[in-house]
Amino acid sequence: MFESAEVGRSMTRQEYEKLVPELRTQLLEVQEELKEAPFPVLILIGGVDGAGKGETVNILHEWMDPRFITTYAFGQPSDEERERPDFWRFWRALPPRGRIGIFFGSWYTRPILERAYGKIRSRELDGALAGINSLERALVEDGMLLLKFWFHLSKPLQKVRLKALEKDPKTRWRVTETDWKHFKLYDTFRRVSERALRETSTGWSPWEVIEGADHRYRSITVGQYILGRLRERLAAVPAEQPAPAPASPAVATARRTAQARTLLDTLDLSQTLDESRYKRQLEKYQGRLNLLSREAKRRGRSLILVFEGWDAAGKGGIIRRLTEALDARDYRVIPIAAPTEEERAHHYLWRFWRHLPRAGRVTIFDRSWYGRVLVERVEHFAREAEWRRSYAEIVDFEEHMHRHDILLGKLWVHVGQDEQLRRFKEREKTPFKHYKITAEDYRNREKWPDYMAAANEMLERTSTEFAPWTLVEGNDKSFARIKVLRTVCERLEEAL
Amino acid sequence: MFESAEVGRSMTRQEYEKLVPELRTQLLEVQEELKEAPFPVLILIGGVDGAGKGETVNILHEWMDPRFITTYAFGQPSDEERERPDFWRFWRALPPRGRIGIFFGSWYTRPILERAYGKIRSRELDGALAGINSLERALVEDGMLLLKFWFHLSKPLQKVRLKALEKDPKTRWRVTETDWKHFKLYDTFRRVSERALRETSTGWSPWEVIEGADHRYRSITVGQYILGRLRERLAAVPAEQPAPAPASPAVATARRTAQARTLLDTLDLSQTLDESRYKRQLEKYQGRLNLLSREAKRRGRSLILVFEGWDAAGKGGIIRRLTEALDARDYRVIPIAAPTEEERAHHYLWRFWRHLPRAGRVTIFDRSWYGRVLVERVEHFAREAEWRRSYAEIVDFEEHMHRHDILLGKLWVHVGQDEQLRRFKEREKTPFKHYKITAEDYRNREKWPDYMAAANEMLERTSTEFAPWTLVEGNDKSFARIKVLRTVCERLEEAL
Repeated sequence: MFESAEVGRSMTRQEYEKLVPELRTQLLEVQEELKEAPFPVLILIGGVDGAGKGETVNILHEWMDPRFITTYAFGQPSDEERERPDFWRFWRALPPRGRIGIFFGSWYTRPILERAYGKIRSRELDGALAGINSLERALVEDGMLLLKFWFHLSKPLQKVRLKALEKDPKTRWRVTETDWKHFKLYDTFRRVSERALRETSTGWSPWEVIEGADHRYRSITVGQYILGRLRERLAAVPAEQPAPAPASPAVATARRTAQARTLLDTLDLSQTLDESRYKRQLEKYQGRLNLLSREAKRRGRSLILVFEGWDAAGKGGIIRRLTEALDARDYRVIPIAAPTEEERAHHYLWRFWRHLPRAGRVTIFDRSWYGRVLVERVEHFAREAEWRRSYAEIVDFEEHMHRHDILLGKLWVHVGQDEQLRRFKEREKTPFKHYKITAEDYRNREKWPDYMAAANEMLERTSTEFAPWTLVEGNDKSFARIKVLRTVCERLEEAL
Repeated sequence: MFESAEVGRSMTRQEYEKLVPELRTQLLEVQEELKEAPFPVLILIGGVDGAGKGETVNILHEWMDPRFITTYAFGQPSDEERERPDFWRFWRALPPRGRIGIFFGSWYTRPILERAYGKIRSRELDGALAGINSLERALVEDGMLLLKFWFHLSKPLQKVRLKALEKDPKTRWRVTETDWKHFKLYDTFRRVSERALRETSTGWSPWEVIEGADHRYRSITVGQYILGRLRERLAAVPAEQPAPAPASPAVATARRTAQARTLLDTLDLSQTLDESRYKRQLEKYQGRLNLLSREAKRRGRSLILVFEGWDAAGKGGIIRRLTEALDARDYRVIPIAAPTEEERAHHYLWRFWRHLPRAGRVTIFDRSWYGRVLVERVEHFAREAEWRRSYAEIVDFEEHMHRHDILLGKLWVHVGQDEQLRRFKEREKTPFKHYKITAEDYRNREKWPDYMAAANEMLERTSTEFAPWTLVEGNDKSFARIKVLRTVCERLEEAL
């Protein structure tokens, strides 16, 4: 794979100076066009030390408008970053639509380093690379133009280059002990990198290996490649604007399916709990949850709870019974409504990554990322291709939490259609609950079969071993509250 | 001050249970109304250990809708926080309009602790308190309802309370060694706190001292106080909606003033630099800047550069000459355009606090917080009272940077009216600069005297010893670029 980047390509000063002015102008032009485009550009820079990674990043800033490029160099993670899943630091740095982000060092750095140093096994590297492929695929499918450059130097040339840098007083600072340590491991690094690049040179985001020996050649090559890909992508934009989805066949199918017996149909909604048992159990489980949450905090284990379910299913009341048992300093309830402007400029999961708690905290999502496959699906806010692929994206997202030892509980609170109507009417009568009910709620009721189909498919596709759904029979509020409290306690007990 | 919180106020269970349901309903109602209101609520909780601070926060969460309250407990700062000015962690946690934030521990904690432990002098405490007053005033003037509760216990009662907590296995964990250490310093803490409260019980945000001995009394008192203040504030909202400002007398005055000779008029715009000297000096200063920036990074000193000036004054070109000398991994250019939805929901300085760099980085603002007293003033986007008070707020903001050893350079790039027109015409002729010029630019030109007056007043009011403005004669681009490079180099040399 790297042989073709050891052939000694170079460029004369004359050629270079002839090409640069035109290339710069064109890059500025496409960058200008990009500002209004509905997708972000992310450029990953990796490769051999001394092969010109830093210089290339600097030259890109020089050639383009640096006000609309943001470069992140990922060194040691901060403590805020270490307390979240590995990818959190990258998610928080992703460029919004219309902008260019450059990652100097990226999600590739750690797995390659760890494998080269023998800290992880070959199979673990494969796992990490598969995770990277999923992430990149999700970003590209969301519209991102992802360009990956690997700067290569042959072993003899790297040595020459490091020595030359070391000799010049102006560049001496750039060569560190680590660089020489890595040089000694050159062959290992080469083998591991080659494997990493092969496994992640996908159709949706191939690697571009750049021969790093000649600075003129590599700058022009990278610049032209970026220009070409950006132009291509900008030209493709109008064609990709989707027509607003009509009542799609998928929903029609779903509707039919809904008439069959589903998981949700099997719930026994007649279960109840009488007042006195409710009070006793409430006290018992709240006490237990309080102790468990303090122990979880002590051990730095975070808990994330996700609540989904019908309107008026009683999610708010359940959440309140949970938070009563927690210390207000340690939990956060995140109500999910329409995304903000800034959130809309990113992948739909970005806003949820943002809210991942630091170690030892509790975060409760009142509605969540599942909106993508529920309301956004049923109301056609997302295209079918979008919500379909999000099942896999969601499972990936939850797996990242799981691998970071975050405890995740997902609760679907279910009520029958009649009970829902009864509660709507009741809300209309109670002055301080009146605001909770709108014409919208009645409109949603009419789409009950569509929502039912969407919910059933969601439960099926996103129940994993590490993050199963708990179905909560919600017709009796007391029963539902206790069931949730007990479930959360059990989940914590099992984990601690 | 605390004597009145040692009189033994309490409440029977019966009274309490009679009051609670009504209070909860009313709190929920005002909270609902708040969601649509154009201001945030911030509740600060401070006071003696064991006086019920935590319990009160929990009960507020229980009584209100926890989905719209966010509580932050400020313990040890994270490394990301330590690398910014002290107030950064508080700014990042401020609630947006329509929401309630609770700060458990706040900007009071550190100065009080440090003074009680004798780490800072009395005068330093005063300085810190003055800084707090400025901050609170800025937030309140921006519309925030700021409620400050201090929970008090007499010395004998604190002892009783800590012992009781320690005895009960369920609460033992809550009493730490630090609590007893603080108890031994009770009298000192009392004296320092009393002073802090006195100095910061201002008209715009007075302290409310709560007798902490009886949990029923203190919960009801806090709840009722919040209810009362929120109702009062919500009732006042419509009256405060400002009429859109007409051509205000202030601007008229400013226009007259502009006819007098001003600071900007004194600039000698005829200064130039010939091509060959420009090239030599460019190389010299870029080389020097590169070395200096690396040294600054090594020492963890951050540099913030602010660029303001006329349209087409050449800010972009100047910034590019600076960034060419820097490593793309270490700097960030922040172009300031219209604020996002999320930014508009906060104090106007919030978005700039957000962008303060970690230690050792360079941040370049292409336009900045000065927009408040320039475009927002001239175009009436801000009311007169708003932009008037922002001079002081800006000076405070910059002082925070200064105290954190951040180097701040502020550059006003000036061109004459004729030169600006010439550049507009030139831009229209150059294909890839065409986008830079709009009808808006010509409209702004017509307001030249207003902008001139605003700029002159800004320069006068915000030039401080620690953050002076540098005026850059911009008619000759080469001259301007070198002047900026030299200024930045000198600033760094002086500081390092």
